[in-house]
Amino acid sequence: MSYAAGIMSGTSLDGIDVAIVKIDTSAPEDPVYEFAAFESYPFEDETKKRIMTALSIDNSDVALICSLNFELGKLFGNAVVAACKKNNLASEALRFVASHGQTIYHHPQKEGLLEPSTLQIGESSVIAEIVKTDVVSDFRYRDMAVGGQGAPIVPYSEYILYRSNYVQRILQNIGGISNATIIPKEGMLKNVLAFDTGPGNMIIDELCQHFYQKPYDSNGSFAKQGSIHQGLLSEFMSHPFIAKQAPKTTGREEFGKDYVHDLLAKYQMPANDWIKTATLFTAKAIAEGVRPYVDKTGSELIIGGGGSYNSELVKMITAELPEAQVMIQEDIGFSSEAKEAVAMVILGHRTMERLPSNVPSATGAAKEVILGKITYY
Amino acid sequence: MSYAAGIMSGTSLDGIDVAIVKIDTSAPEDPVYEFAAFESYPFEDETKKRIMTALSIDNSDVALICSLNFELGKLFGNAVVAACKKNNLASEALRFVASHGQTIYHHPQKEGLLEPSTLQIGESSVIAEIVKTDVVSDFRYRDMAVGGQGAPIVPYSEYILYRSNYVQRILQNIGGISNATIIPKEGMLKNVLAFDTGPGNMIIDELCQHFYQKPYDSNGSFAKQGSIHQGLLSEFMSHPFIAKQAPKTTGREEFGKDYVHDLLAKYQMPANDWIKTATLFTAKAIAEGVRPYVDKTGSELIIGGGGSYNSELVKMITAELPEAQVMIQEDIGFSSEAKEAVAMVILGHRTMERLPSNVPSATGAAKEVILGKITYY
Repeated sequence: MSYAAGIMSGTSLDGIDVAIVKIDTSAPEDPVYEFAAFESYPFEDETKKRIMTALSIDNSDVALICSLNFELGKLFGNAVVAACKKNNLASEALRFVASHGQTIYHHPQKEGLLEPSTLQIGESSVIAEIVKTDVVSDFRYRDMAVGGQGAPIVPYSEYILYRSNYVQRILQNIGGISNATIIPKEGMLKNVLAFDTGPGNMIIDELCQHFYQKPYDSNGSFAKQGSIHQGLLSEFMSHPFIAKQAPKTTGREEFGKDYVHDLLAKYQMPANDWIKTATLFTAKAIAEGVRPYVDKTGSELIIGGGGSYNSELVKMITAELPEAQVMIQEDIGFSSEAKEAVAMVILGHRTMERLPSNVPSATGAAKEVILGKITYY
Repeated sequence: MSYAAGIMSGTSLDGIDVAIVKIDTSAPEDPVYEFAAFESYPFEDETKKRIMTALSIDNSDVALICSLNFELGKLFGNAVVAACKKNNLASEALRFVASHGQTIYHHPQKEGLLEPSTLQIGESSVIAEIVKTDVVSDFRYRDMAVGGQGAPIVPYSEYILYRSNYVQRILQNIGGISNATIIPKEGMLKNVLAFDTGPGNMIIDELCQHFYQKPYDSNGSFAKQGSIHQGLLSEFMSHPFIAKQAPKTTGREEFGKDYVHDLLAKYQMPANDWIKTATLFTAKAIAEGVRPYVDKTGSELIIGGGGSYNSELVKMITAELPEAQVMIQEDIGFSSEAKEAVAMVILGHRTMERLPSNVPSATGAAKEVILGKITYY
């Protein structure tokens, strides 16, 4: 039995999530992962600003990216140490830390001179030194090296944690971007399908920032006061990503600031109508995305990520998808916010054991590969 | 007994060097490294241009850096496969590949908001897939995470290969930048001192490019036809790096294009006078840098790297440093051009064995650490 920590820092730029997980390897072929603790550390505004600059094609430069890789490594390492301390655990006793890193670019398709590629930063060497243990990082690269989209990255861990012999389970994560993992009833790992469904909180957050200088729509309170604008909704739904066949991935490049501000210049309506319409679009994109795969004999759609705390969004998804039982992670005893950081531990453990953990049916990769890189303390 | 490959791609942007090394571990505590083959693959102009863009603060952006990491990974992987093929070795039989990566930024000191940091690219996951074996990469980061300058990186391997009970040996590498490793007679690893001495071929190359559209001064033929300009030489020697105490590191930031073009705007003289004066500066920077450390009872200064093939430069160093016996790698049966790629194999082997290989007395690091990251095939 040992402990490990997972670090997630998502596209929503909320901050650093740390999950501590107990790993029971008494049956080495089938390790048991038990959730132990979760802590979250918001980014300071200055850090968030530096990340926003680093992920902008217009404003980024090599010196900033070089430095920010080390800066974030320090913040990630400190976050793990703080989480361990709060939970009375010596950080050096962790068997390993698994860090996702901050994605600052992800373009899974060839575009002109640009090769399919991805870039996460938050230097593992710095994390290793601060936490005083081995670090596994850079999970997406190896999948892309065999033709995968490098995303979604969590299906393996979702399969391990959520597979059921009684019901199909659709894990719907709503972070900056939304992604779904579909685990068939009694299914094998190779039958798992996963893909991005489109925007998560990204558009809603950008609108809240624009109109209210707030980072997000707390519990959907702005959306609840708005009305739907049909013209905008149609334009949202005409985004080419919606009609694309799965597996598909998207990112801030498609649904970020530029996209929202182009629309803001085109339509006039009250702030809450913007937010309500964007919320409905987010819900519809999810429903449209998963609908073709819903098992009519029984399906649970389990929502996780920050979006699960927006009750208006959850209500809309429930209404849009009557063919599934829609719930949130907490309804089945899991933690929405901890989910991705826990996933990192499971992927990291696979890497330490020299075992693959990508899911080719989800990413489109040519084969299973061992994800990540190991940095020794 | 096994084989491994080292990949070096230096600041001079010449191309990709691949060394194949036989590792004899019959005495596991003291492995023997035997040079087996060396191949070099020049970058195509387009690749060189993309790297130059990526390392420029003004022109770089996150999308290019993201893509170029994968592009270079592919070139590095292909270079190893080609080198193996040429030497009748199956690439998947290599025990590992150790890749230095292309440095696109290195600032060892804090500068305003920028933290001490370094950035090498050439994705290890892509190399692993192409070569079909494990890869060790990113050697400089871990040293910087403990306060080191992340450079020089080769002293450990130089110590292993060149230590002598009879004479002090100074390994003088002349790539884009020049660096020296000083191995005392009968010295222990902790007595090894290493530091950058200043520009290597960087200034000379920039001038050859400017005046002749040639990448370098072949065997010093332009310098041989020029005269020394004392004003320019004094200005060169007044560069603050020259008077700095070791350990010290420098890079393209200090002696690159901007530096040369500022001087070109300031002085007027024939092309070959520029080149001769720059060559003498390069020689003097080396002599000034190592002079305080020369063992008067016997010292060999062994020149490696591309600069060792510039006989005018070697002649100048010999004249500037009468207190040492100046020679080139080939004089003692080694290969100048293979030296750094061979070093990568030795460092990579240490990492695979979970052993440290930075030299704190050379980098200024607080302690010995295990360098690099491991990517499994």
